[in-house]
Amino acid sequence: MNYREESLKKHAEWRGKIEVVPRVEVDSREKLSLAYTPGVAEPCLAIQKDIDKSFELTRRWNTVPVITDGTAILGLGDIGPEAGMPVMEGKCALFKAFGGVDAIPLCIRSKDTDEIVKTIELLAGSFGGINLEDISAPRCFEIETRLKQDLDIPVFHDDQHGTAIVVAAALLNALKLLDKRLQDIRIVVNGAGAAGISIAKFLIRMGAGDVVVCDRKGVLNEETSFNDAQRDMAKRSNKSRIFGTLADAMKGADAFIGVSGPNCVTKDMVRSMGEGIVFACANPVPEISFEDALEAGAAVVGTGFSEKPNQINNVLVFPGLFRGALDVRAKEINMEMMIAAAKAIAGCVGDAQLKNDYILPYAYDLEAHKAVAAAVAAAAKETGVARGK
Amino acid sequence: MNYREESLKKHAEWRGKIEVVPRVEVDSREKLSLAYTPGVAEPCLAIQKDIDKSFELTRRWNTVPVITDGTAILGLGDIGPEAGMPVMEGKCALFKAFGGVDAIPLCIRSKDTDEIVKTIELLAGSFGGINLEDISAPRCFEIETRLKQDLDIPVFHDDQHGTAIVVAAALLNALKLLDKRLQDIRIVVNGAGAAGISIAKFLIRMGAGDVVVCDRKGVLNEETSFNDAQRDMAKRSNKSRIFGTLADAMKGADAFIGVSGPNCVTKDMVRSMGEGIVFACANPVPEISFEDALEAGAAVVGTGFSEKPNQINNVLVFPGLFRGALDVRAKEINMEMMIAAAKAIAGCVGDAQLKNDYILPYAYDLEAHKAVAAAVAAAAKETGVARGK
Repeated sequence: MNYREESLKKHAEWRGKIEVVPRVEVDSREKLSLAYTPGVAEPCLAIQKDIDKSFELTRRWNTVPVITDGTAILGLGDIGPEAGMPVMEGKCALFKAFGGVDAIPLCIRSKDTDEIVKTIELLAGSFGGINLEDISAPRCFEIETRLKQDLDIPVFHDDQHGTAIVVAAALLNALKLLDKRLQDIRIVVNGAGAAGISIAKFLIRMGAGDVVVCDRKGVLNEETSFNDAQRDMAKRSNKSRIFGTLADAMKGADAFIGVSGPNCVTKDMVRSMGEGIVFACANPVPEISFEDALEAGAAVVGTGFSEKPNQINNVLVFPGLFRGALDVRAKEINMEMMIAAAKAIAGCVGDAQLKNDYILPYAYDLEAHKAVAAAVAAAAKETGVARGK
Repeated sequence: MNYREESLKKHAEWRGKIEVVPRVEVDSREKLSLAYTPGVAEPCLAIQKDIDKSFELTRRWNTVPVITDGTAILGLGDIGPEAGMPVMEGKCALFKAFGGVDAIPLCIRSKDTDEIVKTIELLAGSFGGINLEDISAPRCFEIETRLKQDLDIPVFHDDQHGTAIVVAAALLNALKLLDKRLQDIRIVVNGAGAAGISIAKFLIRMGAGDVVVCDRKGVLNEETSFNDAQRDMAKRSNKSRIFGTLADAMKGADAFIGVSGPNCVTKDMVRSMGEGIVFACANPVPEISFEDALEAGAAVVGTGFSEKPNQINNVLVFPGLFRGALDVRAKEINMEMMIAAAKAIAGCVGDAQLKNDYILPYAYDLEAHKAVAAAVAAAAKETGVARGK
């Protein structure tokens, strides 16, 4: 099937992938008087006295906007806020189907960091958490950081952290298969945008032996860095002091993680790793094809494609992650909660099932999403950021 | 039943009166690939080429936010954005139940006109229309005016126009009962806030003989006016050149319309009208009770209360009005569409049914909402503001 052509047809039929429905009946005078005026005055006054009650008396506790400025939509780039809506809507459908979260798509007609932050902060009283989506680097770093500082509800940029969590889950299981330990290995991350920086940060935090980050100019260093996030990463990564090109970095590396562009990895580069792990996640064209990576001797290969084994898809992360955070009214999503999510996803593939071509649960596996939610909620409680029961 | 106490209990049980649900299935690899990646790239690119396609390929065509800043919630006043949410959510439930519109509640944490306008404009690409709600005067006038100038989707402040439309519908039928004509009568509007000014404007535009607007200081004149909207109204109203108090204005008036405060109208004042029309719409306590107005000789009495006959409730307006506007992709909601809505509501009560205690259809009468939608869509086409079929 040509998914893209077929999808366009389907979208024209659907005219929207989500809808808003009432949870109350309003088909009589009495019911109207309870759900709307005059009855509704009482919950309003209760919230006026204690704003916290908005989490008990309205849908706020379960509502998360999926917000984009349209600057980094899929692998398509800066296509504009309205053009990002099909992705945002799709994500909202997945939020509900897999996490029971009421998600609403919002596109912002601005690329200005201050305007985006301001807009979201002014609306935050309507929501239980904020999911940032497809905002380009480096603005996404500052936007997320400022929102996290100012708001007391979870703020999560999925392109950074969702990707990092599912990559980490895949890596944990691949290492199990190869009988290696995270602290002993060297990982090459190709791509120093939102996803690449976040993956590197997350793996370092999880205890990876060494992480080397590359971009188009080769191994990231303080001089080639474009922005603060890259400069910071240049300092924290590359313990092995490797210099040169991506090919230089990949020689002898245990794992390659690509969140970059099409066809930038050759078979020779994969061969130079030995029996390595290759996650070629670029979309719509990967760094190297699934088949070529296997042929070049990679031991475990994953891509972003649903048609191939080992799809590395952040759909496995965000529904359960927010479900868990909302369930305990977490005031933030911290590193411990993200690590718990990664381990929970990895744990969904039992030792008996684990194979080179099956390292992650399927994106539509409801049990996986439940496991993530439970692990995230538990981690929130343990780290003292849960305000609910 | 004590609606307010019972309503608080119900709200705690409901934990939200609306929810967001998927309209697509995502429970297999194939379905995920169509609704989300990789298929979704194609509708994104189609919208990038032609932003108008966002009305065909996403839910934008049917989505309307119900937006407040929390400054004029019901009759409760400035209780804060979060505290307004139960009303906004209730309204969203009614939007869907009666108009099939997907409405989402948004509360804005600002009372600054510029910030509110900016926030809404930055989000407008997500929506097919904008419903402003419970924003206090005079800011609501400027906010609506600026949004209408800048946006090419319908913008509607329900407290102003929804109220005006349903009051006009009630008045048309009351006049029919009394065999009077709108152009021959003198109407007193008490209250010079958002609703009062808008009702007066609307009735003048519909051809009312004379409209006299009062506020706490008596008949509105250019000297007592607080803001531009009042000054403008002072010039346009009161052809009869009446001066003095509300009581002075009511003497011999054909109709009284109250959108003011509790108990400001006495039986004597109603008596001074003769067999008049009294719409005492203040909430939660009317200008004069239904019973007292009848006892004082009023021929037709309406209030805001669902327990009494002739509830004057703008629930009769907004679902059908937006349904009609969205159905033809109207670029605005103009005066002709609003007049069509008022006449359609009035027309729902047949001559045979029309009585002193039945001048309006019930708020939950689906046929009434359909009639409004059809009339509004037709008026949009006639006035050339429809862009759809």
